[in-house]
Amino acid sequence: MTTVKHVLDKKGRDVHSIHPDASVFDALKRMAESNIGSLIVLEGDKLVGIITERHYSREIALKGRTSPATLVRDIMSTRVMFARPEQSVEECMAVMTARAVRHLPVLEN
Amino acid sequence: MTTVKHVLDKKGRDVHSIHPDASVFDALKRMAESNIGSLIVLEGDKLVGIITERHYSREIALKGRTSPATLVRDIMSTRVMFARPEQSVEECMAVMTARAVRHLPVLEN
Repeated sequence: MTTVKHVLDKKGRDVHSIHPDASVFDALKRMAESNIGSLIVLEGDKLVGIITERHYSREIALKGRTSPATLVRDIMSTRVMFARPEQSVEECMAVMTARAVRHLPVLEN
Repeated sequence: MTTVKHVLDKKGRDVHSIHPDASVFDALKRMAESNIGSLIVLEGDKLVGIITERHYSREIALKGRTSPATLVRDIMSTRVMFARPEQSVEECMAVMTARAVRHLPVLEN
């Protein structure tokens, strides 16, 4: 059984985050720099949300907003689905399919 | 062995496309309406590219462009990776990982 921990051992444990009061433009810049499609949103140490390319593609141009003038907190998801290191990849895929999410931050403790 | 055909039997065979001279804004609108993250780009019957949320998040705001004033052809990928119905899901996942793509149109014949 492949677990989340096995995946992280290969993939690395870098976590990319942004503050909720940053602009969506800055979030895009950070995603591009790291070649990723989502950022967790941290206020101090507290996980307050997640922002993904999906939010950008649905919530900016189509809603008449612009990325420099919109805050991360205005379009992020605040109900963050997450995984535990000991979970299997199959369980994670089931959660992602059921909840229609593509990104599962991994939390320990 | 689960094949692409099995997946399509469950998922359906609707293909969502757009013309290369449409605006990126129209592409976003079409993706949102169908709740998807990519469109194949057709010029008449000819597959000429693919456009995804990834193109939008990397190629518009960060490059100083706007989605209503940018054409699909200016940001789409013209080298389209694809799958055949008889291929296994595992093969497709290997291609997606190796080529770093998330969307594989399925071609027959």
